[in-house]
Amino acid sequence: MTDARKAALDYHAKPIPGKLSVELTKPTATARDLSLAYSPGVAEPVREIARDPENAYRYTGKGNLVAVISDGSAILGLGNLGPLASKPVMEGKGVLFKRFAGINSVDIEVNAESPQAFIDTVARIADTWGGINLEDIKAPECFEIEQALIEQCNIPVFHDDQHGTAIVTVAGMLNALEIAGKSLDSARIVCLGAGAAAIACMKLLVSCGAHADNIVMLDRKGVIHAGRTDLNQYKAMFAVQTDQRTLDDAIDGADVFIGLSGPGLMNAGHIRKMAPNPVVFACTNPDPEIHPDVAREARPDVIMATGRSDYPNQVNNVLGFPFIFRGALDVRATRINEEMKVAAVHALKDLAREPVPAEVLEAYEMQSMSFGPDYIIPTPVDVRLLDRVSSAVAQAAVDSGVARKPYPTHYPLKTVDDVYGG
Amino acid sequence: MTDARKAALDYHAKPIPGKLSVELTKPTATARDLSLAYSPGVAEPVREIARDPENAYRYTGKGNLVAVISDGSAILGLGNLGPLASKPVMEGKGVLFKRFAGINSVDIEVNAESPQAFIDTVARIADTWGGINLEDIKAPECFEIEQALIEQCNIPVFHDDQHGTAIVTVAGMLNALEIAGKSLDSARIVCLGAGAAAIACMKLLVSCGAHADNIVMLDRKGVIHAGRTDLNQYKAMFAVQTDQRTLDDAIDGADVFIGLSGPGLMNAGHIRKMAPNPVVFACTNPDPEIHPDVAREARPDVIMATGRSDYPNQVNNVLGFPFIFRGALDVRATRINEEMKVAAVHALKDLAREPVPAEVLEAYEMQSMSFGPDYIIPTPVDVRLLDRVSSAVAQAAVDSGVARKPYPTHYPLKTVDDVYGG
Repeated sequence: MTDARKAALDYHAKPIPGKLSVELTKPTATARDLSLAYSPGVAEPVREIARDPENAYRYTGKGNLVAVISDGSAILGLGNLGPLASKPVMEGKGVLFKRFAGINSVDIEVNAESPQAFIDTVARIADTWGGINLEDIKAPECFEIEQALIEQCNIPVFHDDQHGTAIVTVAGMLNALEIAGKSLDSARIVCLGAGAAAIACMKLLVSCGAHADNIVMLDRKGVIHAGRTDLNQYKAMFAVQTDQRTLDDAIDGADVFIGLSGPGLMNAGHIRKMAPNPVVFACTNPDPEIHPDVAREARPDVIMATGRSDYPNQVNNVLGFPFIFRGALDVRATRINEEMKVAAVHALKDLAREPVPAEVLEAYEMQSMSFGPDYIIPTPVDVRLLDRVSSAVAQAAVDSGVARKPYPTHYPLKTVDDVYGG
Repeated sequence: MTDARKAALDYHAKPIPGKLSVELTKPTATARDLSLAYSPGVAEPVREIARDPENAYRYTGKGNLVAVISDGSAILGLGNLGPLASKPVMEGKGVLFKRFAGINSVDIEVNAESPQAFIDTVARIADTWGGINLEDIKAPECFEIEQALIEQCNIPVFHDDQHGTAIVTVAGMLNALEIAGKSLDSARIVCLGAGAAAIACMKLLVSCGAHADNIVMLDRKGVIHAGRTDLNQYKAMFAVQTDQRTLDDAIDGADVFIGLSGPGLMNAGHIRKMAPNPVVFACTNPDPEIHPDVAREARPDVIMATGRSDYPNQVNNVLGFPFIFRGALDVRATRINEEMKVAAVHALKDLAREPVPAEVLEAYEMQSMSFGPDYIIPTPVDVRLLDRVSSAVAQAAVDSGVARKPYPTHYPLKTVDDVYGG
């Protein structure tokens, strides 16, 4: 067993299995305490919630509780390993929710025989929580599942593999284009990959100003063009009239490459064919479409991002989902709409343009970091993310009419200890 | 608002809503920590679980995690108030699981249009946990639901309103009969109430040696006799050939009265008609079928138990379910079978016959307490419950062949801090 493998297994197994535990937030020492926590005292909040369901937010943990739900059909880059095998990932998501945004979570692994069975199952238990984070569900089923649950639930339902990835990617992309002296509305974009994350990224790029006509998407069979008859409805949205058939065709003169596909699928020849100051987001993890060192050697003018923490410009979902849910929960949003996603993009984008705090420099052992080719997106250790992204999302929810509470009076948020205003 | 009502609502609302929170059990301070907790390290336990599902117990929280699941159709004594209104009770159950047995729990409120929909929903998500505690589901649907889930799940499924109540009641009953100089196999038993708890109590009494012919059960319409045509299959099991039609008929000469019905349904006249040294368990909460003071005045020879904490002999489910699940989880039992329930009964019964520890006397501000008419069942503050009941249940699971692990080497258990041997 390698050291890294052993360390990961030991972390999960010792001294007790797993990563999460339940903590009691109220006193339970005395018989009186327990008579309030349970019978007979608990009858009072029951009656209040029966009278008005909104009281669940006042008397239970619902308002700060997110379910992380998967069927294990697309676990990380590992494929369909089934619901139970996804549990460490879902619990890990719970770690990040708590660590970065003070959100409590429970993981639910669903063993469903069909997308409809998955939808029915989750819809029936959705009232339990304040929000639902769908995770590691394969395309195209994930689109149908998410859409149905958004319609059936009165709480935010958010497939992070789609929208979390898209929000962080687009934020970095806007900054990369700015630095490269390019504009989104005229940029020629090549997207290698046509799964959940790829489609969500392209949709959000369009919401932010890209032209669909300038986007060429490729799946395993090559360019998604108007002549293809094997496309599902989600890929078909991005079919273009073109003679291009391969990545080699499409990459010629492109301004932007986004890889959400598989390791090593881009080579130095491809990147050499791109336009001046190319922007390359090779997001497959841990081994990207092209290694940053190879890309830099082929094109010294590249602006490069990956999913790797050991190179600059890490596109990492943890920059998004904890704070997006924080903002959504704090105004009791009924959904996470396009306005809220775009607000999160701009909050991330803008934060990268501000001076980097000393703590971040220390964490990365850097003398200086500043907005530029090697710093286009904030780092996960940046504590300002909590306030910037959450408040932007909360404000967008209020402005777009999906908030059921006003903008929180306990904002701005400084630490995860003051996140939950109740 | 009364003081008690205000105290209960304040307890649930302040300083933060609810009673439970998520705690991280592994380090998450550094980038390295997070790379183990989530990507890329988390891929290792995923692979291990995909290889062998039993590894979920090694690398995730599953083995010490119980779901508390309700549809809110029979909340406490309040009736069918719907799933969301049951949430404070389910969270309260989680408080008791953690406080008394170190078990982590999540609550799930199910909004199902039919028992089958409830069953399907829970069965599809059951792999998430190490056990399922069903709660506050009305009869007769609860019987069908529990039975189907026991058959479909490979983890313990336990409807506490039935079996938890039955286990604690029967333990106290065995001691009460001993003190009264009566024997279970000849005792004439009247059970007022024919809901989930009542039926489970009578079934467990029979498992422990009572004769079904000696039991008269009454529902809202009176005695459940062989001539009735309005009985569901669960009540029909207790239909007897008799001319008795009312409680007044049935109670005449009875040795035992068990009330699981409604407040004030027994009067002094009823209790005066019982046999010498009558045993009266008036379990409806918070107002029993007959007040202990009224019962005592009518029959100074009564041995009396209620659900009240302010009188001796409190029949309280918390004496059972935390430890029953503790024992079941620790040997990875596939179910909680009759042998395990009977083992829990005897563990509780036997513990009441031992000297009472000083801490218990202190908690109740008593100079002495000992086995007798006013002490037939242990108190919830008795720390010995954890080991006695859990170990009895674990041993019974091993002996009856439903354990997937041997009897735990980390037993006996002293405190909730050493409960989880992994």
